[in-house]
Amino acid sequence: MDLVKVVGKSIGNLAFEVDLNGHTIITDAPVKNGGDNSGPSPKSLLLAGLIGCTGIDVASILKKMRVEYDDLTIEVETYHTDDQPRVYKDIHMVYRFKGKDLPLDNINKAVQLSQEKYCGVSAMLAKATPITYEVVLED
Amino acid sequence: MDLVKVVGKSIGNLAFEVDLNGHTIITDAPVKNGGDNSGPSPKSLLLAGLIGCTGIDVASILKKMRVEYDDLTIEVETYHTDDQPRVYKDIHMVYRFKGKDLPLDNINKAVQLSQEKYCGVSAMLAKATPITYEVVLED
Repeated sequence: MDLVKVVGKSIGNLAFEVDLNGHTIITDAPVKNGGDNSGPSPKSLLLAGLIGCTGIDVASILKKMRVEYDDLTIEVETYHTDDQPRVYKDIHMVYRFKGKDLPLDNINKAVQLSQEKYCGVSAMLAKATPITYEVVLED
Repeated sequence: MDLVKVVGKSIGNLAFEVDLNGHTIITDAPVKNGGDNSGPSPKSLLLAGLIGCTGIDVASILKKMRVEYDDLTIEVETYHTDDQPRVYKDIHMVYRFKGKDLPLDNINKAVQLSQEKYCGVSAMLAKATPITYEVVLED
């Protein structure tokens, strides 16, 4: 196993700057919660991580399968609970591919492999809340 | 409960661009995994989210307690498993405060409240792996 170490630093009020392997991410609270909205809310980074993680899997697998598409967007819908701690509840993902004569079987297989086998972010978040998903093909 | 919707878009190879409430995050895979390292790895965003989330709590609570400090860094150490899905295993956090005559009891209380009551990111990740933490005060 690899040791991972990440350091974040308070940069005033509620904002933090985190170095991720040379890439700087700033998180902040929205103004209504006392922050300055100088970056995304920390919790929403989980959803960006989820999209990016499964996106890497799906793009990699489809490349190996020689499946080409013009466009891929990944949408996440979830609920943010009112009670403390405020967590995400029920995550639904839509993988939306655009292209000509897209092979549904291969694309379904790639998405399923990511969600059920490869995507570590999905595996971790699925311990906290169910994750469902669907594939939509558009011409 | 609030509905949250986030959309990410493939921007070529393995990179994805995600809009988080007006803030753009790019995730990518490292070069050794076939990506272009144009942004942080998706999984590492979970750790930035964890730092930012508990950081907001702790900074907010200490402000209410009128506790002042010169500097706060939050370090996360964890292991990245070798097996698929590759997940984080055992997260340890160090809250490092710098300042004069810092009140350990209040600071411990703020960190504990975040970890045990308020921080939604911590609550979600704790379903996947244990999270431990400590407070270090430096003059």
